[in-house]
Amino acid sequence: MRAQAIRIIGIDPGLRRTGWGVVEADGVRLSYVASGLVTSDAEGDLAYRLRQLYEGLVGIITSFKPQEAAIEETFVNKDARATLKLGQARGMALLAPALAGIGVAEYPPNVVKKTVTGTGHGGKDQIAAMVGFLLPKATFDSADEADALAIAICHASHRQTAWAIARGARLATAR
Amino acid sequence: MRAQAIRIIGIDPGLRRTGWGVVEADGVRLSYVASGLVTSDAEGDLAYRLRQLYEGLVGIITSFKPQEAAIEETFVNKDARATLKLGQARGMALLAPALAGIGVAEYPPNVVKKTVTGTGHGGKDQIAAMVGFLLPKATFDSADEADALAIAICHASHRQTAWAIARGARLATAR
Repeated sequence: MRAQAIRIIGIDPGLRRTGWGVVEADGVRLSYVASGLVTSDAEGDLAYRLRQLYEGLVGIITSFKPQEAAIEETFVNKDARATLKLGQARGMALLAPALAGIGVAEYPPNVVKKTVTGTGHGGKDQIAAMVGFLLPKATFDSADEADALAIAICHASHRQTAWAIARGARLATAR
Repeated sequence: MRAQAIRIIGIDPGLRRTGWGVVEADGVRLSYVASGLVTSDAEGDLAYRLRQLYEGLVGIITSFKPQEAAIEETFVNKDARATLKLGQARGMALLAPALAGIGVAEYPPNVVKKTVTGTGHGGKDQIAAMVGFLLPKATFDSADEADALAIAICHASHRQTAWAIARGARLATAR
């Protein structure tokens, strides 16, 4: 890692599978480090599944040593049960970096899309295609991984802007 | 603690404040150990607040060494934002015992109420009064503490019943 480079982990939380992607940003240069999924045993109890996902993320953080983390603000929909499930996974996904002393920035979904694709309403395919273009060395199989990388790219782009500081990215410092 | 006695922590999660209560069950005898609230700084970022609550609960678990944990199944309401917030706090509250190797049982709210008050639709005041009656040594100031104790009492009552095993209490074993 170059002296001025910073490693960022993007996380796309879900109870069944949580996508993660690590990128390195050096000024405007961006490079792919790694990405993947942590999954939980669908037959397991909720607490056990959250623990599986948490321990998976802690392993990733320990291996790749990101210095900052980013997560999408959750899309709140009308399905309250789905919202609750996602909330629980999201609590886990926020805790993993926070307990490792890493600040976690949050971005609205349309900002992530706009940063990566140029529009605020690109589909999953479009996001994956642009992530592949921006990170030519990236290998990923799933939309969750592509989304996690998109969130990391978004943070790389916004982390030092007034916008991020003033409005969007609430970068939780590890106090 | 007596040889056959078991310590149970009940947790009532919330992002602003999370109630906790520890009881000891020895057969049908029930006794109060401790209860309180862990709170988060409302001005803090979400990840930081979840970390504050988590570290508070870990401190409680380390101090009082419960062997089992119980939490209410969340009431899903129409306010999606509130549901998401609660979900995030709930993810944190499930992780704290799970990562300490403690199984977490879940009970529907009406089962907690029925166990403690005899009806499935008691109000907060009625629950607090019955918790005070069942645990004469308990001292608590808030409804969140009373609710956490009620959840612990519910688990003490149901943990060895077929009902708990077959239907309601999904006791996550620390695998």
